[in-house]
Amino acid sequence: MRANGWTILAGSLCLVLFGARQELVAAAPAKANQRDQMTQASLINSLMLGQYDGKWKIKELLEWGDFGLGTLDHLDGELIVLDGQVFQVRGDGKVLKVSPEQTTPFAVMTFFQPEGTFSCPNLSSLAALDRFLERSIPKRNLFVSLRIEARFDSITLRSVQRQEPPYKPLAEVAKSQSVWTHKQVEGTLIGIRSPAWSVGLNVPGTHWHFLSRDRSVGGHVLDCTFQGGEVKYDLCRNWSVKLDDSPALDKLELESDLSRELKRVESSRGSDDAPQSRVPEHKKP
Amino acid sequence: MRANGWTILAGSLCLVLFGARQELVAAAPAKANQRDQMTQASLINSLMLGQYDGKWKIKELLEWGDFGLGTLDHLDGELIVLDGQVFQVRGDGKVLKVSPEQTTPFAVMTFFQPEGTFSCPNLSSLAALDRFLERSIPKRNLFVSLRIEARFDSITLRSVQRQEPPYKPLAEVAKSQSVWTHKQVEGTLIGIRSPAWSVGLNVPGTHWHFLSRDRSVGGHVLDCTFQGGEVKYDLCRNWSVKLDDSPALDKLELESDLSRELKRVESSRGSDDAPQSRVPEHKKP
Repeated sequence: MRANGWTILAGSLCLVLFGARQELVAAAPAKANQRDQMTQASLINSLMLGQYDGKWKIKELLEWGDFGLGTLDHLDGELIVLDGQVFQVRGDGKVLKVSPEQTTPFAVMTFFQPEGTFSCPNLSSLAALDRFLERSIPKRNLFVSLRIEARFDSITLRSVQRQEPPYKPLAEVAKSQSVWTHKQVEGTLIGIRSPAWSVGLNVPGTHWHFLSRDRSVGGHVLDCTFQGGEVKYDLCRNWSVKLDDSPALDKLELESDLSRELKRVESSRGSDDAPQSRVPEHKKP
Repeated sequence: MRANGWTILAGSLCLVLFGARQELVAAAPAKANQRDQMTQASLINSLMLGQYDGKWKIKELLEWGDFGLGTLDHLDGELIVLDGQVFQVRGDGKVLKVSPEQTTPFAVMTFFQPEGTFSCPNLSSLAALDRFLERSIPKRNLFVSLRIEARFDSITLRSVQRQEPPYKPLAEVAKSQSVWTHKQVEGTLIGIRSPAWSVGLNVPGTHWHFLSRDRSVGGHVLDCTFQGGEVKYDLCRNWSVKLDDSPALDKLELESDLSRELKRVESSRGSDDAPQSRVPEHKKP
């Protein structure tokens, strides 16, 4: 009996130790690696130069984070990742769930673990929001992920139409983007703020996507007005870039200064400087 | 007695399992994460702007790779990591082993797992070597680590003197670098080739350090002539940047175009354009 007692005790000790170690294997290394980590698939200049073929699967992106933004294979709309759920806002404004097997040519991901929360005052434009956040989080050389829950008096969104090869550069494609303005809509702003030194690689300043609370409206944010809201932010001290190794990459002049074109792509309302842009019928959630 | 036998058996099983698992914890997850991964501490522009305080320990660097280059706390010479061994080439030309507790303000590391090997012809300058490697490995948009074993007819090296705060910018400090030329020396070129798009962040083109076979001579390579050699290379499709989170970082204009100054720092022989440079007495291994 005593023999069995010792055996059980030793066995239990073994299981306890082994069990504890197993838990560490599953969780600890991932956490340590991914704390404050922002990971991006490809460089923005690659997208600017018309590299729209998806090279990374969505399930791979979800290993890099539960929060992020980007686009989909063939530039098929805007990509939004929120709380580990992945959405596509198509060029016609439809919001769809994305499957793990779909792919992306460009995305930025992080595990959103907020380091701070504060209230946001009433703001009448996206530019005013960006200025407010620059003052509130003066970490100009770090990447910052931002999440704002608010009720928007007005929000102007865009998405892009799926492209077919041979692909035109993004500055060309963006001229035919779809633009919507929604009134009185609740939802989440998903922001990735990139330092000025990331020019050509990511989008310097804050790149904002939006998803409504009922998941029926979303897109790349061109402008917004809102009556306060709650800002959560996460500073990223580690930045990681994944590059594909296709022969196409070898020919690209990724070092080109496309910052002027990018600014137009990111902030243009289309209608102001691209007469061919259209406003779809899908108007309100 | 049987009780003890079982106890020992169960205990041994526990130790065997626990031991095996421990080995997995140390090695397996690291390998998957680190394949084709280049990791750098800080940005070259941070160093250019005089951020010489060590923020990362050498033991941390060794978690990112067994091969690399950089500098040390207080810009105290050139850092060389080869086969997991870490060396410092001081401003007086002395080659010292570096302890895991020492720190660095800037370093680039990778686990060197060569993807290819080829012979290098006789070359009469570092510029000719760079041109030869651009043709041989036309992956202009990826990071590449390079290792060349050769006998050098001549190799011109430099190192920098330890600085004290308030730090001067690197372009200023480099004017007083030490330069050596060694004849008939065997050793290893440690190269990190960075794409043109990494301007301001790393050193576009190939950044070469050298360590002699007998570990008595080393430094940042300014020029060399050699009778053939063996090139090994490793393409890096994943690039990771670690940023420190000091208040000093918030003030730096890291987006500044310092490429002209960097070029001078990287390739200047000192004597050509900086009359105050000096040649130490330490001449040959």
